[in-house]
Amino acid sequence: MLGTGGGGDPRIGLLQALQAIEESGPTELVDLDDLPDDALIMPCGMIGAPTVHIEKIENGSEGAVLRAELERQTGRKVAALMPAEIGGSNGLLPVSWAGRIGLPVVDADGMGRAFPEVPQVTMHLAGISPSPGVMTDERGNVLVFRAISGAWMERLERCAAVEFGGAGAATEYPMTVRQARGATVRGSYTLAIRIGDALAAAAGDPVAAVVAETGAFPLVGGKVTDVERRTTKGFVRGSVVIEGLGDDAGRLIRLEIQNENLVALEQGAVLASVPDLISVLDTETADAIPTERVRYGQRVTVIAMACDPVWRTAAGLGMAGPRAFGYDFDYVPVEELAGARA
Amino acid sequence: MLGTGGGGDPRIGLLQALQAIEESGPTELVDLDDLPDDALIMPCGMIGAPTVHIEKIENGSEGAVLRAELERQTGRKVAALMPAEIGGSNGLLPVSWAGRIGLPVVDADGMGRAFPEVPQVTMHLAGISPSPGVMTDERGNVLVFRAISGAWMERLERCAAVEFGGAGAATEYPMTVRQARGATVRGSYTLAIRIGDALAAAAGDPVAAVVAETGAFPLVGGKVTDVERRTTKGFVRGSVVIEGLGDDAGRLIRLEIQNENLVALEQGAVLASVPDLISVLDTETADAIPTERVRYGQRVTVIAMACDPVWRTAAGLGMAGPRAFGYDFDYVPVEELAGARA
Repeated sequence: MLGTGGGGDPRIGLLQALQAIEESGPTELVDLDDLPDDALIMPCGMIGAPTVHIEKIENGSEGAVLRAELERQTGRKVAALMPAEIGGSNGLLPVSWAGRIGLPVVDADGMGRAFPEVPQVTMHLAGISPSPGVMTDERGNVLVFRAISGAWMERLERCAAVEFGGAGAATEYPMTVRQARGATVRGSYTLAIRIGDALAAAAGDPVAAVVAETGAFPLVGGKVTDVERRTTKGFVRGSVVIEGLGDDAGRLIRLEIQNENLVALEQGAVLASVPDLISVLDTETADAIPTERVRYGQRVTVIAMACDPVWRTAAGLGMAGPRAFGYDFDYVPVEELAGARA
Repeated sequence: MLGTGGGGDPRIGLLQALQAIEESGPTELVDLDDLPDDALIMPCGMIGAPTVHIEKIENGSEGAVLRAELERQTGRKVAALMPAEIGGSNGLLPVSWAGRIGLPVVDADGMGRAFPEVPQVTMHLAGISPSPGVMTDERGNVLVFRAISGAWMERLERCAAVEFGGAGAATEYPMTVRQARGATVRGSYTLAIRIGDALAAAAGDPVAAVVAETGAFPLVGGKVTDVERRTTKGFVRGSVVIEGLGDDAGRLIRLEIQNENLVALEQGAVLASVPDLISVLDTETADAIPTERVRYGQRVTVIAMACDPVWRTAAGLGMAGPRAFGYDFDYVPVEELAGARA
């Protein structure tokens, strides 16, 4: 739901988390306020194309390898793992990795959603260095990156992900708990659990339950009538067309994609855009459909949610607003766009 | 001469070495036998496409950056630099890098020539691990590689070189002096200096002086009539056609290139092939012409020289023989091919 189509298929991450919990016991969820100030937090997840990640699965030890190398590089002990992004499989992978090495995960993340590029994290906005970054793959290759900028970290990690076959495990922006308190989106897991609880308790209409719990704005209900998707240079790019059904009959909505859903357009007008969250839900079950799984004929409801306020600052929009993705329009908050339509 | 067309334009490396010597004084040349057994040797050079290297120049501090990171990764002090390959600019870069950081270079290299790919070094044949490898660029990005094999080191370093813009500075196969004594081609600088001395002393015919000094086999004297060259995926690939002149009138020789000259063919017959050395010399000056500088109309003499015996072993041919470069024929030593023609 929070992955906005990206972060990798959560089903993959869920199966891995369930297996890890079965083998190693539950993973502890901790708040940053419960950790010592100078403990080291390791943000982590997969980098690459979600289409590849469906069939190129982790070997389970990536978290241990990343942690060992990060400790080696920094000379400090990692106290807890954190998802770089709460969305998709990447929100769940740290749960399995942390469980397998006996560390907790912190109830926070670096986005409050999923974004395609490495420096599109709140840690970057807070001025934390992306270096040292570490990557590994299921074969056991290990790379360490001391990049001169977030943009170079993105370039270098992306090309390694492509060379690994399209995806790899990564950590960047290591930080202390003290730094993390002001440089992350807090309560990400709590929010995800709350949405899950609302869904589990939903009686007839799960999509309505999600909307009620999250304050999301429904954009359209309809049928996927066209999908254009290509896996290129370590990203999934493309677009999806949804034809309205029922109350929305006659409407045509176009979503544009770079791993995540970036913008929702109707006859050239913007319904919602990055950094706000745009999610495609199965109309019957409210299961979020990742961009790599969207296909012709699916009955879907598209919803949009307000992003974390940090993304609405000048720095946040500079890093992850419409113009950062090459669009020639200014960001308007989803609630204003919805209000104008209503 | 020893670069067989590759290793980067020696003019670039020479200018850098002269400047470094002017600024920091002469670089000491030492024999492996004069260093303590457990001192650390840092093989180094540029990786990437020589065409790019012509105009993407080092900033001069690459050697210092590589050394600092290698010491950090290994916890040992580097005692001397060594060219991964004696050929081309890569034979000279360690001279300037070592001079700038006050270390000697050892009179040895990892090939006795130049080869295009990372694991095509004598250290690899001797079973030395390529890890940790380190790369840096003129901007100051630093990458550390712990690859599971030489082939993966090649893949990962190559993609970083491409991302850096087509070339980057690198070290792999760190080793002790004890290991290096049995895992390198000894006396590489001495040989290069000897060839240089012979050229300097040559009276009328510098090409003849080179042939006399090295025991090389002249393959053809003529004019470059066709050059096909493309810079792709971090390599220069292509072919060169030379039309015979004078005694060689009527002959057509084709060279095939991957950074270095790989094979010399005449009407489908092999005149010389990797791992033997094939060099294109200016017929008047005997200046070696690197593959990225060969052009239509040049008057050239192509010579071939026997490679170091280690490349003629089964392991050596497996790594750098014709079949390793995708050719469907077995290696025949250049002296046998020349004898059969004579």
